[in-house]
Amino acid sequence: MAEKKKKRILTGDRPTGKLHLGHYVGSLQNRVRLQKEYDTFLIIADVQALTTNFETPEKLSRDVRQVATDYLAVGIDPEVTTIFVQSMVPEIAELTVFYSMIVTVNQLRHNPTIKSEAAQYGYNDMTYGFLGYPVSQAADITFCKANLVPVGEDQLPHIEQTRRIVRKFNNLYAPVFPEPEALVSDIPRLVGLDGKSKMSKSLDNAIYLSDSEEEVNRKVQKAVTDPARIRKTDPGHPEVCTVFEYHKAFNSDEVNEIEEKCRAGKIGCVACKKRLAEVLNNLLEPMRERRVKYEQNPDIVDEILMAGTKKVREIGKKTLEEVREAMHLNYFK
Amino acid sequence: MAEKKKKRILTGDRPTGKLHLGHYVGSLQNRVRLQKEYDTFLIIADVQALTTNFETPEKLSRDVRQVATDYLAVGIDPEVTTIFVQSMVPEIAELTVFYSMIVTVNQLRHNPTIKSEAAQYGYNDMTYGFLGYPVSQAADITFCKANLVPVGEDQLPHIEQTRRIVRKFNNLYAPVFPEPEALVSDIPRLVGLDGKSKMSKSLDNAIYLSDSEEEVNRKVQKAVTDPARIRKTDPGHPEVCTVFEYHKAFNSDEVNEIEEKCRAGKIGCVACKKRLAEVLNNLLEPMRERRVKYEQNPDIVDEILMAGTKKVREIGKKTLEEVREAMHLNYFK
Repeated sequence: MAEKKKKRILTGDRPTGKLHLGHYVGSLQNRVRLQKEYDTFLIIADVQALTTNFETPEKLSRDVRQVATDYLAVGIDPEVTTIFVQSMVPEIAELTVFYSMIVTVNQLRHNPTIKSEAAQYGYNDMTYGFLGYPVSQAADITFCKANLVPVGEDQLPHIEQTRRIVRKFNNLYAPVFPEPEALVSDIPRLVGLDGKSKMSKSLDNAIYLSDSEEEVNRKVQKAVTDPARIRKTDPGHPEVCTVFEYHKAFNSDEVNEIEEKCRAGKIGCVACKKRLAEVLNNLLEPMRERRVKYEQNPDIVDEILMAGTKKVREIGKKTLEEVREAMHLNYFK
Repeated sequence: MAEKKKKRILTGDRPTGKLHLGHYVGSLQNRVRLQKEYDTFLIIADVQALTTNFETPEKLSRDVRQVATDYLAVGIDPEVTTIFVQSMVPEIAELTVFYSMIVTVNQLRHNPTIKSEAAQYGYNDMTYGFLGYPVSQAADITFCKANLVPVGEDQLPHIEQTRRIVRKFNNLYAPVFPEPEALVSDIPRLVGLDGKSKMSKSLDNAIYLSDSEEEVNRKVQKAVTDPARIRKTDPGHPEVCTVFEYHKAFNSDEVNEIEEKCRAGKIGCVACKKRLAEVLNNLLEPMRERRVKYEQNPDIVDEILMAGTKKVREIGKKTLEEVREAMHLNYFK
């Protein structure tokens, strides 16, 4: 009985490559913590990845498994968390089509996230699917009747769009869906090692959860620090130092001490980086250990994905039955 | 073997009410003829009906059965033609979502039919689903790999959009789909009894296939004729007479004689209308006879729709398997 009362979380990622420390700080850490408390569903949103990768879907097969392996390595427990693949759940496509009738084009065009992504990729050649990203996301969230969606602040407009769709659906037809709430993470976005942009594969400024000890050491060594500091004894400015940003995010025990020493010119950048690399490797080591099992037995990953997908399809079918009844589309019942 | 070589036709209607003589002249007559020659699929496009009726889906249940009954009454043979309900085929929704990644918003906005329908209903509040109507139609046509689509000229841009999607899909992924061709009907649109607009329920200027003999007589009596003709002996102007339009469409045996007599003032409008009503009732009488069976046993209509839908789902599943393989989305095969 107690089991039944757990609130449901829906979250996930587009499979566009290996996950990195930015994902860890921004979401994965949170998910590992939340999975004990909530009934958690992790969607690998491969259909949404097609919005920007439709020309190279063959990469998806690798990336879907990569993301799943990263989840398992980071500590997502497949016994309590359901991991599934979006494209294998037709009920999500069906809901997307139904919702598309109750969302106006203008609502989508004014969605700030669509606007800013459109600014990056261009509006003129935007695909119809790209414009409908918030509709598709509403289908992801609602097909399993999620109550909570852990998101970054930039995703809030999507959740608001989902809430609007849910309200409109419930008002027009019948109260099928709970109005999902955003669970905004208070941890800020992690800057890349270049100190300029967020971590991103294309900028080569990211530490991946699957990086080896040597890769972590090498990447941290070339991280950008305070450019005004020439000698170790010069007083440092932690507020402009990328390495210090990482100490704040991953080394809370020592961060105050490091700040003091840096400002006083008592710790040099080389030592400071070395310590950071140690801290990061300590964090990543248990993930590496868990990862070995899955990389040596990739069938286990496939089985977990298939089992999760099977489970959500049952949930999706039940939801769609309710949706058809609410919309009076269950003609032959 | 010969059976297998038949080309496949996909066509159908949005279930928005009873079908009328305009539908008969524009498409139904053709379909009855074509069903012997082609493997015909008739879609009752209830999801697309939602694009304009999303607020009153409860009417759909009645209208879906109404359209099916009209099909059967008019002579569509459920032994050779497959009639099915769009919303019950999830594979169409899945294809719609996949296609939405390879169609740009601009292509849809420049689609002449979308433009003109938007002019009627307004652009600003256009739903996302309405804008995507051509994408959805492409999914309808291709999920069953139709070769031919009988359409009115105003629908040609939709077919062209489907062909573009098919070409793009086949080029990007693999040659899964035949490029469908439009089969343009050369019969012009039938004007309403008011002589002003096409037949439409809202204008009350239509003769329905389900109208009784008395209704047909009454409606034809009030049809608009040549306003310049006061007395029977005045020379008439068939080119401005709605009743003459109907003689052209439904009474080819007598139309030349009627034209001559009208111009010579030798047949009055009352007699001319009476003859038209007779001709129309002769046409509709066998439909009325067939209809009785279905109206007395509505379960038969439901069974036909369920059997047709079951059949197309098998076809759709097979197509989607090929699509997933082409797009490299069949991860666990």
